[in-house]
Amino acid sequence: MSVTAPRGFRAAGVTAGLKASGRPDLALVVNDGPDHVGAAVFTSNRVVGHPVTWSRQVVTDHVVHAVVLNSGGANVCTGPEGFLDTHRTAERVAAALDVSAGDVVVCSTGLIGERLPIDRLLAGVDVAARALRPDGGPDAATAIMTTDTVAKQAAATREGWSVGGMAKGAGMLAPALATMLVVLTTDAVVDPVDADAALRVATRATFDRIDSDGCMSTSDTVVLLASGASGIAAPRAALADALTQTCASLARQLVADAEGASHDIAVRVRGAQSEGAAVAVARAVTRSNLLKAAIFGNDPNWGRVLAQVGTVPVEVAAFDADAVDVTINGVMVCRAGGVGEPRELVDLASDREVHIDVDLHAGPAEATVWTNDLTHAYVHENSAYST
Amino acid sequence: MSVTAPRGFRAAGVTAGLKASGRPDLALVVNDGPDHVGAAVFTSNRVVGHPVTWSRQVVTDHVVHAVVLNSGGANVCTGPEGFLDTHRTAERVAAALDVSAGDVVVCSTGLIGERLPIDRLLAGVDVAARALRPDGGPDAATAIMTTDTVAKQAAATREGWSVGGMAKGAGMLAPALATMLVVLTTDAVVDPVDADAALRVATRATFDRIDSDGCMSTSDTVVLLASGASGIAAPRAALADALTQTCASLARQLVADAEGASHDIAVRVRGAQSEGAAVAVARAVTRSNLLKAAIFGNDPNWGRVLAQVGTVPVEVAAFDADAVDVTINGVMVCRAGGVGEPRELVDLASDREVHIDVDLHAGPAEATVWTNDLTHAYVHENSAYST
Repeated sequence: MSVTAPRGFRAAGVTAGLKASGRPDLALVVNDGPDHVGAAVFTSNRVVGHPVTWSRQVVTDHVVHAVVLNSGGANVCTGPEGFLDTHRTAERVAAALDVSAGDVVVCSTGLIGERLPIDRLLAGVDVAARALRPDGGPDAATAIMTTDTVAKQAAATREGWSVGGMAKGAGMLAPALATMLVVLTTDAVVDPVDADAALRVATRATFDRIDSDGCMSTSDTVVLLASGASGIAAPRAALADALTQTCASLARQLVADAEGASHDIAVRVRGAQSEGAAVAVARAVTRSNLLKAAIFGNDPNWGRVLAQVGTVPVEVAAFDADAVDVTINGVMVCRAGGVGEPRELVDLASDREVHIDVDLHAGPAEATVWTNDLTHAYVHENSAYST
Repeated sequence: MSVTAPRGFRAAGVTAGLKASGRPDLALVVNDGPDHVGAAVFTSNRVVGHPVTWSRQVVTDHVVHAVVLNSGGANVCTGPEGFLDTHRTAERVAAALDVSAGDVVVCSTGLIGERLPIDRLLAGVDVAARALRPDGGPDAATAIMTTDTVAKQAAATREGWSVGGMAKGAGMLAPALATMLVVLTTDAVVDPVDADAALRVATRATFDRIDSDGCMSTSDTVVLLASGASGIAAPRAALADALTQTCASLARQLVADAEGASHDIAVRVRGAQSEGAAVAVARAVTRSNLLKAAIFGNDPNWGRVLAQVGTVPVEVAAFDADAVDVTINGVMVCRAGGVGEPRELVDLASDREVHIDVDLHAGPAEATVWTNDLTHAYVHENSAYST
C-alpha cells in the first residue's frame, strides 16, 4: 500500500526544517532498478513552478532515478534564483545517490512567491538519502503532507508485479500550496512509451476528474517510476489498468480530505453523446459555488444543477433541456426538465457521500466527476493561509 | 434616478402575496408613448425560465408596451403549466392596460422548480395597474428585490432627454433566485435597430463584466423601453453612451450588494493584445475561490492571481508568464513574474474596494471585471435558501 510495495524501490521522509510546525517536510523515492523507466504528467497551467520546468526536462528521455519532494514552499514565481534552487536540489540528490542530476525529478509544494530555505533543504537531502529504506514508503507519504489531514497511499497487485502510489493534496483546493503531487511505482518491466501512454490513460480517468474548487495548480505533478525488479513484463493495457486502480483510490482519498469539506459529491452524467460531453457537463455542475453551498446545507437544490447544465455550449454537449432528469441520492427530483419527486424525500444528512445523477437522454456515454461541498471551513482555511 | 425619470412612463410596486415575508413582490412599468420601442438582452444559459422564452418572442418586433416583474418565484423548470402561467400574466397585464399581450415583457425571480401562486399573481397585476404613477419608479425598484438589501436605481441626463434604470440581483450570486433583472427607460426618440445595438454595447461593457461567483442565471433579463416623449432624437452612439453610464452605475450597485460580500474587487488587466484577451484574463482571476477567500481574510495572496492568469490558453491571450506584474492596492507585489514589493505593504483592511491590476506587457488593450470576496456570509446565505 505504498511506493515501496513494488520491488526495487527505497524511500524516506524526514524533517529538514522547512515547515514552521517542525513536521516532516522532505521525501525521497529512489528506483534501484534494474530498469529506470520514468514518465510524468504535469499541470497545464502556463504559470508553473521551477520544479515543473526542471522535471519536464528530466522525463523527456524516460529515465528517472529518483524523485525528491518538499513541502513548505512551492518555488513558484521566485525568479532565476528559484530555478537555481531546484537545480541545486537535484544535484544534491544526484551526489548522494551517485546518479545524474538530469535523472532526478523535483517536486515542491507550499506558498507561491517565497524563496525556499535552500541550505536547510540541501542538508535535508543528505539526511533523507541516509534514511532510505525498502519499507520507507509510509514515511515519504507523511513528509509530503501540507493541509492534508491523512497520508494518502494505494496499491494494486497483479500476477507477479504490482503498482504502489502516494499522493498529497487537499483536492484541487490549494494551488497556492502547489496542490497535488503523486508518485507511482511499479516493479513490472515496462516499455517507456507504454509507461507514458498508460500513465496518461490512468490520470485522465482519475485525477483529471476531481475538482474541488475549479482552481488549477502551478505545480501538479504525477510521476511514475518502473524498476523492472519483478522480471515480469506488463503490457500497456495491463499497466494502464493497474495504474488506474491505484490512481482512482488516491483521487478518492484526495477528495475525501479536501479542505473543509463535509460532503464528497459524485456528479455522474449519463445519456451524453460522448464521454467528452459527459465530462464537460459534469465539470460545469461541480464548479457551482451555489450548488456546493446548498449541499453543505443539506439542501437538494436541483435548480442549481439545471442552471449549470445549461451553461454548457451546444457544440460541446448536445441535449434538450426539456429532457434532462436529475436524481439526487436516488430521488428523481427533476424529471424531463421539470418538477419530479418532492425534494423533501432526499436525505443528504445521513451520509458524507452525495450522488447526483444527470441523465441528458442524448446518447450512450457517461462520466463521473467528484467534488466536495463549499463550507465555512473552506472559507476559513483559505482566508488565513499565507498570513 | 428611476425608471420614471424619463417622460412617458408610469410604474408601480405592490404586494401580491407571493413572498412569505409580505414585502412588495410585483412591479409594473408601462410605456405611455408616443413611441413603444423595445429591446432586450437575455441570459445565454440553455436552461431558461418560461418568462425568458416568452419575452424573447415579445421583443422580436421591437415593440414593448409594458414590463411586469415578480419576485417570489423564477418560474423555471416548471413544465408546460409554468409557461401557461407566464402567458396568463402577460394577458392579464394586457387586459388591464388595453394593449396586446404580445407586447408585454414578463420577468420572474425566485426559486427554480416551483410553480408560482398564479391566482395571487394575477390579482396583484390588477392592483399594480391601478397603482401606476408617473413617479412610481422607486416603488417598482423596491418590489423586485429578493436577497437585495437596497433598491438599485440610476439615471443619465442628456440635452433634453434622459435614461432611467432599475436593477435587482445580488451580483451574479443567485441564479436560483433568477439573479439579475434590469429595466431601462428613455424618453429619447430612437430607431429600434439603434436601441437594440446601443443596449448590447452598454450591457457588454457593464453587466457582462461583473461576476460574483461564476454562476450563470436562467433568467437574466435587461429590457429597454423608449417612449420618444421628449421629442428629441438620440443617435445610436449618444444612446449607447447614456445607457452605458446608467448600466455602469447599476452594475456597480449590484456588486456592492452581492450576497455576503465584505470587499468589492476590481480586477483590471492591461497590456493585453486585445480587449477580449484582457476580459478573459480578468474573468479567470475573478473566478478564483482561493483568491476571493484570501481577500476576505485581507491577505494579498498574489500567487493566487498568477495561478489564475496561467489558466488562460495561449490562443485566447498571448503573454509571457515571466513578464507579468501584479499590483494590489497600489503595491506591485509581483514584478516580472517574480517577487516584487513585500506583501506586508498592502492595506486591504481600510477600504471595502480592492484594486488588483495585472499588467501582461503584451499589448495596448485593457478591461476591468468586478467581483467580490468569498465569505462565511455567502456560504451561509446559499446553504440555507430553499429549505
